[in-house]
Amino acid sequence: MAKRVFSGMRPTGKLHLGHLAGALTNWVRLQNEYECLYCIVDWHALMSDYADSSRIRKNCKEVLLDWLAAGLDPEKSTIFVQSHVPQHAELHLALSMITPLGWLQRNPTYKEQILNIQNKDLGTYAFLGYPVLMASDILLYKAEMVPVGEDQSAHLEISRELARRFNNFYGEILPEPQMLLTPTPKVPGTDGRKMSKSYGNSIDIADSPEEMWNKIRTMITDPARERRTDPGDPEKCPVWDLHKVFNDDKEQHKEIIKGCTTAGIGCVQCKKMLMEHVKRVMEPIHERRRYYESHSENLRNIILAGAERAQILAQQTIDEIVNSIGFVPRG
Amino acid sequence: MAKRVFSGMRPTGKLHLGHLAGALTNWVRLQNEYECLYCIVDWHALMSDYADSSRIRKNCKEVLLDWLAAGLDPEKSTIFVQSHVPQHAELHLALSMITPLGWLQRNPTYKEQILNIQNKDLGTYAFLGYPVLMASDILLYKAEMVPVGEDQSAHLEISRELARRFNNFYGEILPEPQMLLTPTPKVPGTDGRKMSKSYGNSIDIADSPEEMWNKIRTMITDPARERRTDPGDPEKCPVWDLHKVFNDDKEQHKEIIKGCTTAGIGCVQCKKMLMEHVKRVMEPIHERRRYYESHSENLRNIILAGAERAQILAQQTIDEIVNSIGFVPRG
Ligand code: SF4
Ligand code: SF4
Repeated sequence: MAKRVFSGMRPTGKLHLGHLAGALTNWVRLQNEYECLYCIVDWHALMSDYADSSRIRKNCKEVLLDWLAAGLDPEKSTIFVQSHVPQHAELHLALSMITPLGWLQRNPTYKEQILNIQNKDLGTYAFLGYPVLMASDILLYKAEMVPVGEDQSAHLEISRELARRFNNFYGEILPEPQMLLTPTPKVPGTDGRKMSKSYGNSIDIADSPEEMWNKIRTMITDPARERRTDPGDPEKCPVWDLHKVFNDDKEQHKEIIKGCTTAGIGCVQCKKMLMEHVKRVMEPIHERRRYYESHSENLRNIILAGAERAQILAQQTIDEIVNSIGFVPRG
Repeated sequence: MAKRVFSGMRPTGKLHLGHLAGALTNWVRLQNEYECLYCIVDWHALMSDYADSSRIRKNCKEVLLDWLAAGLDPEKSTIFVQSHVPQHAELHLALSMITPLGWLQRNPTYKEQILNIQNKDLGTYAFLGYPVLMASDILLYKAEMVPVGEDQSAHLEISRELARRFNNFYGEILPEPQMLLTPTPKVPGTDGRKMSKSYGNSIDIADSPEEMWNKIRTMITDPARERRTDPGDPEKCPVWDLHKVFNDDKEQHKEIIKGCTTAGIGCVQCKKMLMEHVKRVMEPIHERRRYYESHSENLRNIILAGAERAQILAQQTIDEIVNSIGFVPRG
């Protein structure tokens, strides 16, 4: 039987090319090899946006549109919203019973986020426990593999430790999920920093080709190329990073390296080449997005059917958990 | 419409006369005036017994037997087990989002328990958050009244504050529960300290009249009455405290006070009088207990029907909560 993969994303708004190249392209590939569950983790979004939750619903829709646009296939994968499967909350409660407070207080990401995010009050009970909710998401489906970027490996470690600790107390119920380390290409935004909504430097999946061109056209390049006649160094240029992600024409790669370093081509020309490749990649994605935008009944059916499938798996785990703890049987 | 009352008990084993006189007698009275929900809070028991949960199921049964024996009536009250209603976990998760960590860390009962309970490791995430789970239990049913002893008023305060905070963010959904302050008579155990399972000084509801008499017979009395001929002071005698709870014969009260202070009666005689009253009070209770002990299918039906009724109320609240937060509708 195919191994089970779980991954999730917080619904914080429209996704951008960083999400596409860093996660979604990989998720689409995994669909053919594994039994995949992809979850829009709205409870996690509420953790940071509890003081103003008004955008969560819309953001969930945007994420779903972007996922389907990118090629996630509801026939192959189970695509659903976390809060539609109440069992997440039950496993969260069960795991919280055995989670040493120290594990959470010592979690380096926790300390870092509390310091970094100044405009929101993250000093809540839920936020301290977000690795417990994250572990519940994964363990609820007994997922064997979790695609993670390197920066998220600490979270998966807590999930693995919680699975072990649970099994220690109550018997072998929860398999320890394994990391499916995925290459995360560098995807800079228009200002050269990591592409991120919060930096205002992102190119969104939903952007039209015109919007994309406007952003790429004004994107910063190797600062050494002040004039057209100055030679440049692609390795110092974020446009080149995007070429490496979207441009699969190896001959053209050579041309650009040569042209840039000898001032043989201009940056506008280089960006136009990039834009051709971005267009080619985005065309089917935009087409699917338009389709689903105008078929919202379809969207709704996908997400409800996904929740139904997820609930069946989730309830099996909860039944086992409740039995192994030794609660009074429910039925 | 009758106001709604919620109360719960942790399933830690057989209940004793302290539970009977301190809570159950009152609960039985409330059934006729209010819409009552009585919940065996097994998740709360797991909080302290996660390292050995083997007795929880049996303890739930004992509590249920003692409740029904005491006169809780499944036709009048909704009697159920907390873990059978998954919505408790959902509301717990929702409320945890808005619970300031400081409220929990500053909770005086928390600090006290961590210091007092040395033989169990209570340094878990769940235990820090037990007032959140307690608030969920109450608010899930929009209970307007909660019978509390004076020592539990701090917990209800957190529930009230969480209701206000939730309503502040998301609209008027959760009514603030009111305290139903109930007189808590003094019920000492056989050694004169407060009756408590952990002191090993308790007289259990399930004890036979013979067992009860053995315990009462050897119960300590006013230490001043070393010999039969020494006069005593009822106010310094735990047997007298039990007379005040179980003996409704005011004339006899006067006799005892006179007899004790003048050495006119002996302690054995005084205890025999007490035993007669305890027997009278316990007779219908023991009869009901025996009935349910030999009809366990009945027990099972009561608890499942209770869960079904509770779930209907609980789901209404969860639907409102999920809508007011603004999650994607589920159905
Ligand atoms: S030519 Fe291309 S790679 Fe070189 S600096 Fe300009 S945009 Fe960057
Ligand atoms: S006579 Fe009764 S009240 Fe007085 S000391 Fe003895 S047991 Fe207590």
